[in-house]
Amino acid sequence: MAVSRPGSKCKVCRGPAVIDLPRHNANFCADHFLELCRRQVAKAIEQFQLLERDDRILVAVSGGKDSLAVWDLLVELGYRADGLYVGLGIGDYSDVSGEHARAFAAGRGLRLVEVSLRDEHGYDIPTAAAATRRVPCSACGLSKRHVFDRVALEGGYTALVTGHNLDDEAAVLLGNTLRWEVEYLARQLPKLEAREGFPKKVKPLVRLTERETAAWCVLRGIDYLVDECPMAAGNRHLHHKDTLNEIEARSPGSKAAFYLNFVQRMAPLLAERRSDDQEALRACPGCGSPTTATGADGLCAFCRLVATASAHEPVPVELVVRGRR
Amino acid sequence: MAVSRPGSKCKVCRGPAVIDLPRHNANFCADHFLELCRRQVAKAIEQFQLLERDDRILVAVSGGKDSLAVWDLLVELGYRADGLYVGLGIGDYSDVSGEHARAFAAGRGLRLVEVSLRDEHGYDIPTAAAATRRVPCSACGLSKRHVFDRVALEGGYTALVTGHNLDDEAAVLLGNTLRWEVEYLARQLPKLEAREGFPKKVKPLVRLTERETAAWCVLRGIDYLVDECPMAAGNRHLHHKDTLNEIEARSPGSKAAFYLNFVQRMAPLLAERRSDDQEALRACPGCGSPTTATGADGLCAFCRLVATASAHEPVPVELVVRGRR
Repeated sequence: MAVSRPGSKCKVCRGPAVIDLPRHNANFCADHFLELCRRQVAKAIEQFQLLERDDRILVAVSGGKDSLAVWDLLVELGYRADGLYVGLGIGDYSDVSGEHARAFAAGRGLRLVEVSLRDEHGYDIPTAAAATRRVPCSACGLSKRHVFDRVALEGGYTALVTGHNLDDEAAVLLGNTLRWEVEYLARQLPKLEAREGFPKKVKPLVRLTERETAAWCVLRGIDYLVDECPMAAGNRHLHHKDTLNEIEARSPGSKAAFYLNFVQRMAPLLAERRSDDQEALRACPGCGSPTTATGADGLCAFCRLVATASAHEPVPVELVVRGRR
Repeated sequence: MAVSRPGSKCKVCRGPAVIDLPRHNANFCADHFLELCRRQVAKAIEQFQLLERDDRILVAVSGGKDSLAVWDLLVELGYRADGLYVGLGIGDYSDVSGEHARAFAAGRGLRLVEVSLRDEHGYDIPTAAAATRRVPCSACGLSKRHVFDRVALEGGYTALVTGHNLDDEAAVLLGNTLRWEVEYLARQLPKLEAREGFPKKVKPLVRLTERETAAWCVLRGIDYLVDECPMAAGNRHLHHKDTLNEIEARSPGSKAAFYLNFVQRMAPLLAERRSDDQEALRACPGCGSPTTATGADGLCAFCRLVATASAHEPVPVELVVRGRR
């Protein structure tokens, strides 16, 4: 893993460094890098009051570096955490990602809950994308949110953890900021409290970059799916990551300042905007989930997606990806 | 001026286009492009209530495209507007910029007020940069703001106009947003109302890009100083412009949406932050200007700059620019 300059030394012990972190203006050996990651996660949990010691945690696991790293870190830090893997049916990508999630759980004796969209709801993401004629990420995000919420509440979990890292959060923040989507900005926090029909949702990796979570996995011997989702190529989110990486290269620390200053300085000013939409929630007549839907049938967005996508003949991922190029 | 694709036609009259504007998804001939510029300025004035018909306007004129364009546009739209040129003493750059400002005013029979920092305050910008050991843009901005305010108030002007265009405002907004400088964000508006010791300040070009103001000048035969200030090279502001131009190239209209949505959706939520700092203003014992300074001598930042810079032996611009490379 060539992520440090030859001859660079660990800031803590002066041993050979394995990773250079310009934003911390320091280099670290394997042990002290892992220690830094633990400290950053513990700091995020404390700073943003993400988790209690007695929380029953469900980690949304994709088989990628971030979700496996956060699961690993939480267990290491002494939390009780099960995993949830959602089978999205995105061809080989999903097959391999599921194997990584199962291998991680089995190797550590951890419990992994599995839900297959095709088996339980009669569709998969490529088919949903074709049926709705929208970007796949739209149907995917909607499906995952619904399954995460349902499994967490029905399983009696008190916290849903996702592996969103600093790059993810900063990229979404940049997108919302470029259009000044005030309602979205108001809800972009490392913790959303539990409310009627929704579990508490927390993001313990917001103080770690994706380069750091990848290094965590490599150094901890965690075998994760390296490939990006084939359906996300060209996603605007990825462009925003590139933009922030360019800014970060010119001015190390910018990315963390952008996200963390937002949470500390701006988010409190938007608090009123967060309470507004709670009043309009109704129970979906299909699945019982809270929804703001106002259509004639009153169905939530997920139930409408299920109706549309499960009625469509199955579409292989290759067809959707090729169709967009 | 090769700014339109060969064969492209004016959206309005179908004549040969001279400029393509992807953010408007349209091309324009010279006459209809000039008309678009007039409309955008009139729209900004109306939308943000920038100017009244009986305002006595002072335009801060640098000799560059933006300040000459806004002066030209305001006179064309029927406003009474004098110019103010501040001699910054930045070597040849200042000499040439002054000539452009004077030539424009003389050619149109407009009144140009001139203030030389060296003659009236005993320093110039290169000397101030050397004496303060800070970036030149810092002393320059401070000096200009002070002179603009003084001349406007003492001359009985009711509005101070600056040539800040959409690129300028969006770049500053991006910088303030990346660090979430809430107090700065709260004041980043196309209009700041007059208050004790400060004239009303307005930016009528916020709906035009710098490419558009340059094209305005070329098509109107206005001879402006093309060179960027030699002391601003490497300025973070310029990097932010590049960043926004990359985003704009991927997604035309992003830059205007970023700035205009901020003004419409976010700025109103920050209104409380604007009133906060007004209470702490005192009169500077040196110049009488309102200041928030809390030093032992009570002097405002401008008077402190004058004291430091006028005591320093004159430094030529070449020395400062070379020292930074």
